[in-house]
Amino acid sequence: MVWDAWGVPAGHQPLSAQIRGLLTQVFGISGEPAARRDEGDVPLVASTLTASTRADLAALVGAEHVSTDDIDRLRHAGGKSTLDLLRRRDTRPQDAPDAIVAPADHNAVLAVLRYCSAHGIAVVPFGGGTSVVGGVDPVRGRFPTVIALDLRRLDTLTDVDAVSGTATLGAGLTGPQAEKLLAAHGLSLGHFPQSFEFATIGGFAATRSSGQASAGYGRFDDMVQRLVVATPRGTLDLGRAPASAAGPDLRELFVGSEGTLGVITSVTVRVHPIPETTAYQAWSFPDFATGAAALRTVVQTGAAPTVLRLSDEAETGLNLARSSDIGGAPVSGCLAVTTFEGTAAHVAARSAEASELLSSAGGTALGTAPAEQWEHGRFAAPYLRDALLDVGVLCETLETATSWSNLANLKAKVTAALSDSLTGQGTPALVMCHISHTYPTGASLYFTVVAKQLEDPIAQWRVAKTAAGDAIMAAGATITHHHAVGADHRPWMGAEVGDLGVQVLRAVKHELDPAGVLNPGKLVP
Amino acid sequence: MVWDAWGVPAGHQPLSAQIRGLLTQVFGISGEPAARRDEGDVPLVASTLTASTRADLAALVGAEHVSTDDIDRLRHAGGKSTLDLLRRRDTRPQDAPDAIVAPADHNAVLAVLRYCSAHGIAVVPFGGGTSVVGGVDPVRGRFPTVIALDLRRLDTLTDVDAVSGTATLGAGLTGPQAEKLLAAHGLSLGHFPQSFEFATIGGFAATRSSGQASAGYGRFDDMVQRLVVATPRGTLDLGRAPASAAGPDLRELFVGSEGTLGVITSVTVRVHPIPETTAYQAWSFPDFATGAAALRTVVQTGAAPTVLRLSDEAETGLNLARSSDIGGAPVSGCLAVTTFEGTAAHVAARSAEASELLSSAGGTALGTAPAEQWEHGRFAAPYLRDALLDVGVLCETLETATSWSNLANLKAKVTAALSDSLTGQGTPALVMCHISHTYPTGASLYFTVVAKQLEDPIAQWRVAKTAAGDAIMAAGATITHHHAVGADHRPWMGAEVGDLGVQVLRAVKHELDPAGVLNPGKLVP
Repeated sequence: MVWDAWGVPAGHQPLSAQIRGLLTQVFGISGEPAARRDEGDVPLVASTLTASTRADLAALVGAEHVSTDDIDRLRHAGGKSTLDLLRRRDTRPQDAPDAIVAPADHNAVLAVLRYCSAHGIAVVPFGGGTSVVGGVDPVRGRFPTVIALDLRRLDTLTDVDAVSGTATLGAGLTGPQAEKLLAAHGLSLGHFPQSFEFATIGGFAATRSSGQASAGYGRFDDMVQRLVVATPRGTLDLGRAPASAAGPDLRELFVGSEGTLGVITSVTVRVHPIPETTAYQAWSFPDFATGAAALRTVVQTGAAPTVLRLSDEAETGLNLARSSDIGGAPVSGCLAVTTFEGTAAHVAARSAEASELLSSAGGTALGTAPAEQWEHGRFAAPYLRDALLDVGVLCETLETATSWSNLANLKAKVTAALSDSLTGQGTPALVMCHISHTYPTGASLYFTVVAKQLEDPIAQWRVAKTAAGDAIMAAGATITHHHAVGADHRPWMGAEVGDLGVQVLRAVKHELDPAGVLNPGKLVP
Repeated sequence: MVWDAWGVPAGHQPLSAQIRGLLTQVFGISGEPAARRDEGDVPLVASTLTASTRADLAALVGAEHVSTDDIDRLRHAGGKSTLDLLRRRDTRPQDAPDAIVAPADHNAVLAVLRYCSAHGIAVVPFGGGTSVVGGVDPVRGRFPTVIALDLRRLDTLTDVDAVSGTATLGAGLTGPQAEKLLAAHGLSLGHFPQSFEFATIGGFAATRSSGQASAGYGRFDDMVQRLVVATPRGTLDLGRAPASAAGPDLRELFVGSEGTLGVITSVTVRVHPIPETTAYQAWSFPDFATGAAALRTVVQTGAAPTVLRLSDEAETGLNLARSSDIGGAPVSGCLAVTTFEGTAAHVAARSAEASELLSSAGGTALGTAPAEQWEHGRFAAPYLRDALLDVGVLCETLETATSWSNLANLKAKVTAALSDSLTGQGTPALVMCHISHTYPTGASLYFTVVAKQLEDPIAQWRVAKTAAGDAIMAAGATITHHHAVGADHRPWMGAEVGDLGVQVLRAVKHELDPAGVLNPGKLVP
């Protein structure tokens, strides 16, 4: 992962003529991309790691796995939110962890946590570094030193149970690494969030990630069967059965704990045979309300496809602009994408049932091409954001979820909050939205916002983000459906779970991390 | 609910000639049913409630809702496990709560909890009183007084959102009361555990109940969208969206908390339209392994029916004996039951897909009658247990769950533990088993055990239960899939969640119930 943008250099592309034309037309932006800095030229605040601490950590994980190299530190200096990427453009010395420590296995993680707890060293667990909520910011809290605990060496598939459809994966495996190991057994996890190419199994669990095929395979929290967690107080090994009535489900405390309660070192997940068949079908709906009602009918009837998405009019229009670049057919109204995976018989039965429902609910079948195009480009959006940031456009996303009956209200309120807060700063905004995760009782809303950058785009976005977050909570929705809390959503956690809920979280944290060294400044208010 | 047996008097039936013949043949039992005592004749330990405490509680809930009447106390003296029912046959004074307190609403519950916490009075939350694990035993702990907090007045449907498919139900509503209120809106919860006729919404949530239609509608924990919980420290209101990544899912701490962390006062649940159509289909499999593999294929393919069950050879044989009483067709091998609910198109598509899979996996279709008979009698088994206990037969059930690959091993180990421990006491046992809840990664196993009672049947069963619980844990399974922990499974909680997991539970309990008055002796070791 490059230090100041998404992904790998090969993924970066200049803006198309179509997009540049749109930016000139809407925002009056026609500038050339800003030059990027080489990571070797970036000044960092000095590491505070002492020689004795370094030696102690080296004794636990091996000397070659404790790094204070500045390029290493820069690459662990935070995640990939727009705020993160804007901060990287600052020419002052960048904040970074004081060292990168990469333990080999669970026991080494445990040893590092015990050492750091005893010696007052903050620990930021680090997987793929793809957080978009400040979840891996190198925050010291009240400690003089902060390390990034890089989990990349926990990269093994330790168990496969093809009969039960489960696999035990190391926390440090990236999405593609995990899929490759599983494919050797004819299996797939089917978890494809936009961060799939870089994010890790441990990160998926620690953030309650949800992938684009969630309608078919569930959220990552649904997939988790068993978790092994290292804490300063010892190990937790949770999950003895597919389902249990043995008290509170403690797995659900650690799924979503974002490194504040412990470090997830391995996850036993539900997997499935690599699908025999995949069918694609795109749909057009006259408007978002009609499309949302159609998706609702499909999910509530028990006929959900594997992927089920609906873009609103604005996003469909931008898709139109982008897809016409690559020869796609124009789509009017609102575009919906469905895919169906599984055995041939299952795909045939399910797609027939869902298609009949979508058609009856006002959908017009568009054939397979727009759905295949969506799948082809589904990991590319963050690269587009980089290209936009480079020419002076502010681009960020945020997401939430609510009940079906509150969906239109929530969409209107968040759209207004984003538009008004940016327009109020003199920068008219494009706000687009889609539904990408559906449930019998409701759905997620994912917003993309584009505006011209002001001189201080960080301050500019903070105003908009605060307005959107407040609007989400006022509308009774959740502050995050799948991006997690990190530092950026922490101000709303009190509203999310109530004062007493926060006290419960603090009590659990105090029990497992009495020194408070685990991921300071994240999640728990 | 009668005090010394299951259900209502109208449900009680003498044993059929067929069953009595079987008992004579297998156990040499031919005795007449023991006489039952009238509840007015049962001596109780005296209530310790003082006049001043009674006055204080009356001020919180109304004088007519604080009862120390002995019949009231007897009816709140515990649940309905076989151990409970055997204890009721003891002629010495029965233990019972010192008072029954029935608050009107959430705020009254909160007030009672605060009062009891401040004054050191143990509180046993009481719904339908159907616990089979000692979950409502009137345990005082270190307190001089224990009250049963009867939630029956929390009996309203406070909100219906037909678009989102959610309803907010008072914790004290029984299954039939809830279904009746929902039916007025054309809706159904679809949660039908064997305790359905008497158990309550709050109890379903507090115990992680799972109903017979779990393959279609999920476990009760899956249905819960939002929970309101009263604790001595205040109120928790959890669940803002169908799904969220806002940290640990704190709902999952209170679902399954069995009244030890707080009192659930209302639950917003997922509901669905009353099904247009229900289709029934029974199947025969040559043996349990073939049948289990067939169920697995159906669930892993995403073609699950609404109900999906499989009895082993022994249980199928007993079903045969019982159903031939009522004119049913004989079934050899292992009987499986499927039902399909929903729209006509959904039922047609799903039953076609599932039937093809079950047939390909070795099943022989038996038509609808055995499945309809199963549904007709599905709440009757606890009445049969009473009739068996009355003639000197020990009859009890226990349940667990594990992965598909471990299912045969678990079944063999638990069967052996039950058989050996009872035979070792000189009482050969019939052990039957069925799968009633299936998941992509595994299934539940539900055992029914029948043996001749020894002179001390309580001690006799304790030996068998301990052997079975130890075998379950040694086989890597969960100590309970849907009966909860209560007092009876508490000895295995350390093995279930580990020492550190127990410490997390204690930390949460200490935060919310610092005086430790909530349901002493249950769940948390």
